[in-house]
Amino acid sequence: MTRPSPPTTLYLSAPEMIRLVRRRGVAACIAGVAERIRREFLRWDEFDKSARMACHSELGVIELMPIADASQFAFKYVNGHPGNHRHGLPTVMAFGVLADVRTGMPRLLSELTLTTAIRTAAMSALAARSLARPGSRRMALIGNGAQAEFQALAFRDLVGIEVLSLYDTDPAATAKLVANLADQGLRLEVCASAAEAVRGADIVTTATADKTHAAILTPGMIEPGMHVNAVGGDCPGKTELHRGVLETSSVFVEFEPQSRIEGEIQQLPADFAVTEFWQVLAGRRPGRRHPSEVTVFDSVGFALEDFAALSFMGETAAELGFGEVIELMPNAVDPKDLFGVLASKPLAPGATRKMPPARTKLPAPM
Amino acid sequence: MTRPSPPTTLYLSAPEMIRLVRRRGVAACIAGVAERIRREFLRWDEFDKSARMACHSELGVIELMPIADASQFAFKYVNGHPGNHRHGLPTVMAFGVLADVRTGMPRLLSELTLTTAIRTAAMSALAARSLARPGSRRMALIGNGAQAEFQALAFRDLVGIEVLSLYDTDPAATAKLVANLADQGLRLEVCASAAEAVRGADIVTTATADKTHAAILTPGMIEPGMHVNAVGGDCPGKTELHRGVLETSSVFVEFEPQSRIEGEIQQLPADFAVTEFWQVLAGRRPGRRHPSEVTVFDSVGFALEDFAALSFMGETAAELGFGEVIELMPNAVDPKDLFGVLASKPLAPGATRKMPPARTKLPAPM
Repeated sequence: MTRPSPPTTLYLSAPEMIRLVRRRGVAACIAGVAERIRREFLRWDEFDKSARMACHSELGVIELMPIADASQFAFKYVNGHPGNHRHGLPTVMAFGVLADVRTGMPRLLSELTLTTAIRTAAMSALAARSLARPGSRRMALIGNGAQAEFQALAFRDLVGIEVLSLYDTDPAATAKLVANLADQGLRLEVCASAAEAVRGADIVTTATADKTHAAILTPGMIEPGMHVNAVGGDCPGKTELHRGVLETSSVFVEFEPQSRIEGEIQQLPADFAVTEFWQVLAGRRPGRRHPSEVTVFDSVGFALEDFAALSFMGETAAELGFGEVIELMPNAVDPKDLFGVLASKPLAPGATRKMPPARTKLPAPM
Repeated sequence: MTRPSPPTTLYLSAPEMIRLVRRRGVAACIAGVAERIRREFLRWDEFDKSARMACHSELGVIELMPIADASQFAFKYVNGHPGNHRHGLPTVMAFGVLADVRTGMPRLLSELTLTTAIRTAAMSALAARSLARPGSRRMALIGNGAQAEFQALAFRDLVGIEVLSLYDTDPAATAKLVANLADQGLRLEVCASAAEAVRGADIVTTATADKTHAAILTPGMIEPGMHVNAVGGDCPGKTELHRGVLETSSVFVEFEPQSRIEGEIQQLPADFAVTEFWQVLAGRRPGRRHPSEVTVFDSVGFALEDFAALSFMGETAAELGFGEVIELMPNAVDPKDLFGVLASKPLAPGATRKMPPARTKLPAPM
């Protein structure tokens, strides 16, 4: 008989997550999530993995991304709606849950909009650390929207990038990026075209939002030894690289079955050879093999990264006393007597949520 | 340019849902959800449907059940862990979300543990109204756990059941059911075996929890004209009926691709003929054809029922002023400037949640 555990869930709202990231520091959060992703990717075979489920409409996509190991189940809800700015909403919004596999009880419900930006940047930089040339200092950043600052800080801290060459079809986006990155110790160069931004870069990051087969990078722009971090091509019909760039590069992906559907490689035959990045981390497959090789990280975002980010944020919240306890599940005296909750004495309004004590522990899996 | 809509979500906790169901009345909620399910099933072809995703472990299963039409996306998170009572937790726990397809914004986050019991009973009774013999008055209820009272009330109100013959391997479960159903206008007969409970019944409902190939009903127990409402066989390896019962019956299912994996019919060849119940509702296929036919509703629970239940509960909450507004998504001034939320002035603690005014409208899809 296990000691009964109250059916409570720690809730991290978007404003609470903003406070948490401010308190811990965005750079520390990126580094912490990157290290957590690295550790989870080294446990690759312990996870029950599947390609995410996507519900497409004319205006965008809504996805569910589940994953589990023997003790925890996680999923993320995430949308992608490039026209959302017209409604005053972000293109990408997300939330997610961590639950106990042994009981099914959700233990953490968290915003993941801000957290997804952090984990995507952490994943990109983690990959570049293995795939870009050692000593890479200059990165082109094409697409200066919601994801751009996080990429900039991740590559500064985890890869050693010192100079950013910036381009966006919307000059206001670049101006916003320049303003946000003042005082971050990065040299910023605003460019008039993607080609100008890419010229001489060690690393090229593309993070554009249009749901179309774009060709942000064409073969003529690619220089020997570049590493391409392709972030924005992440669903069917949404790519950023000309297929010629892929055909002459070594391509690395997160989870191959999902990337074949959603990644840049959706443009290529199903037998085009790619390497799952976890194999590079685990030392099973080579990453970059020589200085003039062109490497591409065809990133689409994989559920294991969200599992890692949820774990990091949940533990950080517990450590710092952030979040609040919610009752998403009924606390029946007799679990077989669900109907009984309707008959017992009325609940007092306000009895449903209590702030946890500071430095409370995240409820442990039972 | 659409008027910007604040990125807020209506949250219905488990205690809040309990209050809502008490206020509206459980019988009224069952009837309301049944009517909503009927209406949504008549729009069957308008929905983007898929079998649910299941993550199985030795102790249970965690599932995600998504569905969408052109304007709303819904999903349910639900577990099934028969040993959960040892941890003081219900076997089945659930929550779910309704979101705008046009923007991806979640508009309702709700407990679905209590609501799932209500919608499952509503679905069962809705099916029986078309499939059981007219004038059915006696129902056997095998499995007297968390789902049983809801089934009893649904069949009383929607089908006209007056007498319940009860059996459970755990006499305490039956005693609980008898206590909960006192004063509900039903005649209750406690039986010593499943066979005794089934004898002479017009309808037999099985709602047992063991994750095993059980044979609660065998061919010898089935009488001509019975309707079998098989609720508990709902995942691979979990069935309640002897296959002989199915082979000599007309079998009706919710969504055939899912039922082939999870339902009683997982025991039968893939070409065993079944009828999707929506076709009966729509008048495209016959339900019961003669008084001595044995009909089986092989219910596993389909996402469209949760879509209907979420819609009903969200609208009822809005009408009665229940629930609270939460900020699951960041309210950035500039949606392209996610990073900017980290730089603006600190948020006051407690600024993150406000009670909505009474009789607030559920935020409409944009």
